[in-house]
Amino acid sequence: MAGEDLGLKAKKSENFAEWYPEVVLKAGLADYSPVKGCMIIKPHGYAIWELIQQYFNKRLKELGVKNAYFPLFIPERFFKKEAEHAAGFKPEVAWIEAEKGEERLAVRPTSETIMYDAYARWIRSWRDLPLKINQWCNVVRWETKATKLFLRTREFLWQEGHCVYATKEECEKETYLYLKEYERLCKELLAIPVIPGKKTEQEKFAGADFTLTVEAFMPDGRALQMGTSHSLGQNFAKAFGIKYMGKDEKEHYAWQNSWGFSTRLIGAVIMMHGDDKGLILPPGIAPVQAVIVPIYFKDAEKKKVFEVCEKVKKELENSFRVEFDSREEYTPGFKFNDWELKGVPIRIEIGPKDVAKKQVVIVRRDTGAKVEVKLKDVANYLSDALEKVHKNLYERTLKHLKKSIVEVKDYEQFKEFAEKRMLLKCGFCGKKECEERIKEETGLTSRCIPINAKEKKCIICGKKGEETYFSKGY
Amino acid sequence: MAGEDLGLKAKKSENFAEWYPEVVLKAGLADYSPVKGCMIIKPHGYAIWELIQQYFNKRLKELGVKNAYFPLFIPERFFKKEAEHAAGFKPEVAWIEAEKGEERLAVRPTSETIMYDAYARWIRSWRDLPLKINQWCNVVRWETKATKLFLRTREFLWQEGHCVYATKEECEKETYLYLKEYERLCKELLAIPVIPGKKTEQEKFAGADFTLTVEAFMPDGRALQMGTSHSLGQNFAKAFGIKYMGKDEKEHYAWQNSWGFSTRLIGAVIMMHGDDKGLILPPGIAPVQAVIVPIYFKDAEKKKVFEVCEKVKKELENSFRVEFDSREEYTPGFKFNDWELKGVPIRIEIGPKDVAKKQVVIVRRDTGAKVEVKLKDVANYLSDALEKVHKNLYERTLKHLKKSIVEVKDYEQFKEFAEKRMLLKCGFCGKKECEERIKEETGLTSRCIPINAKEKKCIICGKKGEETYFSKGY
Repeated sequence: MAGEDLGLKAKKSENFAEWYPEVVLKAGLADYSPVKGCMIIKPHGYAIWELIQQYFNKRLKELGVKNAYFPLFIPERFFKKEAEHAAGFKPEVAWIEAEKGEERLAVRPTSETIMYDAYARWIRSWRDLPLKINQWCNVVRWETKATKLFLRTREFLWQEGHCVYATKEECEKETYLYLKEYERLCKELLAIPVIPGKKTEQEKFAGADFTLTVEAFMPDGRALQMGTSHSLGQNFAKAFGIKYMGKDEKEHYAWQNSWGFSTRLIGAVIMMHGDDKGLILPPGIAPVQAVIVPIYFKDAEKKKVFEVCEKVKKELENSFRVEFDSREEYTPGFKFNDWELKGVPIRIEIGPKDVAKKQVVIVRRDTGAKVEVKLKDVANYLSDALEKVHKNLYERTLKHLKKSIVEVKDYEQFKEFAEKRMLLKCGFCGKKECEERIKEETGLTSRCIPINAKEKKCIICGKKGEETYFSKGY
Repeated sequence: MAGEDLGLKAKKSENFAEWYPEVVLKAGLADYSPVKGCMIIKPHGYAIWELIQQYFNKRLKELGVKNAYFPLFIPERFFKKEAEHAAGFKPEVAWIEAEKGEERLAVRPTSETIMYDAYARWIRSWRDLPLKINQWCNVVRWETKATKLFLRTREFLWQEGHCVYATKEECEKETYLYLKEYERLCKELLAIPVIPGKKTEQEKFAGADFTLTVEAFMPDGRALQMGTSHSLGQNFAKAFGIKYMGKDEKEHYAWQNSWGFSTRLIGAVIMMHGDDKGLILPPGIAPVQAVIVPIYFKDAEKKKVFEVCEKVKKELENSFRVEFDSREEYTPGFKFNDWELKGVPIRIEIGPKDVAKKQVVIVRRDTGAKVEVKLKDVANYLSDALEKVHKNLYERTLKHLKKSIVEVKDYEQFKEFAEKRMLLKCGFCGKKECEERIKEETGLTSRCIPINAKEKKCIICGKKGEETYFSKGY
């Protein structure tokens, strides 16, 4: 019950590596589990995921994408059908102990193969296209690196969209469309600015023609991939026999894309917006958008204060996710710390003086700003305040992103700013040798070639290239 | 495209065993997969599951239960902690191929052990109780019997609630409360009447003090368990060390219950309400509650008809899940069959004559009744019609349930009506020998001892017993 237990020991600016897991644990977002590499997503963390799902399900509906569910297990032979895909995922697959005479089954690391086997049976004619299916599920990748809650775990939750089209044009157009959706989700829901772009050949999805990505840049100087959209061309269609009878009455291989984001997004939100007091949640994904905390010293005051609190809650709860913290075993000070740690964007304090003056005190989590607001104006004020919180969080992170980007002229400068953990922009030819040299010598990997990148000579070999971002990655 | 392909070959009344999978496949609810025992839940089936989730999430919120997510994998040693539980699940567990020196991991068949290990760490004092957590997830049970879509598959989706209480009274009270919720869900959402009761010792959950169940009776003369709620007593609390410091400043073991329902419910809906034309969906879980089908013969008519269809859709779509079937490559007759097969409760037909008379024709899926309704009255009429469909479906199945119950006086009569696939009610002492004799000689198992059962002598041994239901099971 001691209030001091609630506070964070590590400071974000001083010790980011310790601050991050401490916030995750103390804010009640997630916990480690006795299964190596697997995390428990606790109610506060899961509620954030549900709000992301709600937002995105609405968007999917408008885009004509339908949800479905495919098996957790994938027969071993499926992995062998698309050679690049198989090679890309093989090292991190978990297998089920096979029964005698039965085929070995993998726990899905991603669902291309199990879904496309079904697609090949379902798709017959042009009338069946486009086919647009999304799946919310758990996936497993047998990571060997150290576990980081939300960021690197052997099991995680995600959505994976898998669409099939009659033409290359439609397919590629929509590959960009889903990337645009991810960019929008990051901005509108998570208040995180991202750089949309294309992955280099070395960094693209195993089995794709090309991979698009939205990259965010974290306060510790590493880029985080927030979502990816892969144009699969006809690679899987040919491997799995996804063919359709065209209007021309001839058989054609179909075109496909796949796209996804995961519970990693929650990790990004924590890192991007949190501070030394704990989490700061953008209002769109805050399970509690405003918390009402009663303040009273004598029992006589309590009744009146509680009455007003209940009244305010009732007025707000139809339009906002609001909670009245009526716990009597904790002090207001403890509650302030508790809700700040949990990242609730707005606190509404109501004490005897406020009751007398027909007002409440509204405190913003992001700035700490405190304002007295008349009771009759609370709903309007809150609506406005939540918008301001979102805007401020976005602007703050946008400023950080802009400050982090450095255009480097030569490899000397590249190495200098790589040490400083910046997001480097330079010319790059796309060749494996050049990318591997950069990785070996600086530890940096390419993040993306931004949309509409300009031509620019490669910082390593001097040959023809394009503007490309490099940084440390997660 | 041929309309005749859409129709069902099997008749429900004549060949239920063939009718069921045919409806599931042709209505686009689910499909078999190349992984033995695993199904694909297709968009139409998954949308039903999402509507069940939405309904139940609202109820959970009101009951103070929060959603979370625990690991898919369970360490082998956890299974050994609660002896009965381990014995009950052992035969049907799938295991991950262990890495050298690492512990063997099971794919969760249920999550008691992995959750309660965390609960033991999280719960310290009476202030932490009650702890009420629910999880929506996939579970795996390595079935060896033949696959039945939605009814018996190696992987299925479910919700599992796991609560912890300070006292036995509170725990048992809520074990009944969750059962009540399931009864309500079956009635209000699925339009299926159920018999609530207690499982016999032989049929209870492995590790429970007692198991409550809601049982529905299918048209093929088998009972289906729609949901169960287990009172776990202190069995798991003692095995996992879930203790709390009471207000008395002493340490106590906590009390627990767990409760769940699965995608099996969709199987029940299909069997209960479907007919020879296909699926019939209760409006609460119908992804499309009303479909608008345009009827026109000449192109000149089309424009006007489409205009009215669009107008009606726009008027309805804020209050109902409505779709305008504007596909031009199919005839109205084909569309009628298609939507009937998919179980859409209401069809709205709009043709040139209707346009002229400012009306639509509304057809009920459950009765086939056709009514002309003025354009201005459509929304009100639809709201009313959907309620009537639900009520009719419920009453029809309730009548079937009542007709299926037979009170048998002696074991001769028991065997006679067992042959007729009825739901038998008789006295039963609860002893293993008597239940096993019944199972061996008739193939029937006990379904439940109804709530408030009367005392009645056992139909086998004549000793003291209670009213108990017996039937074939799924």
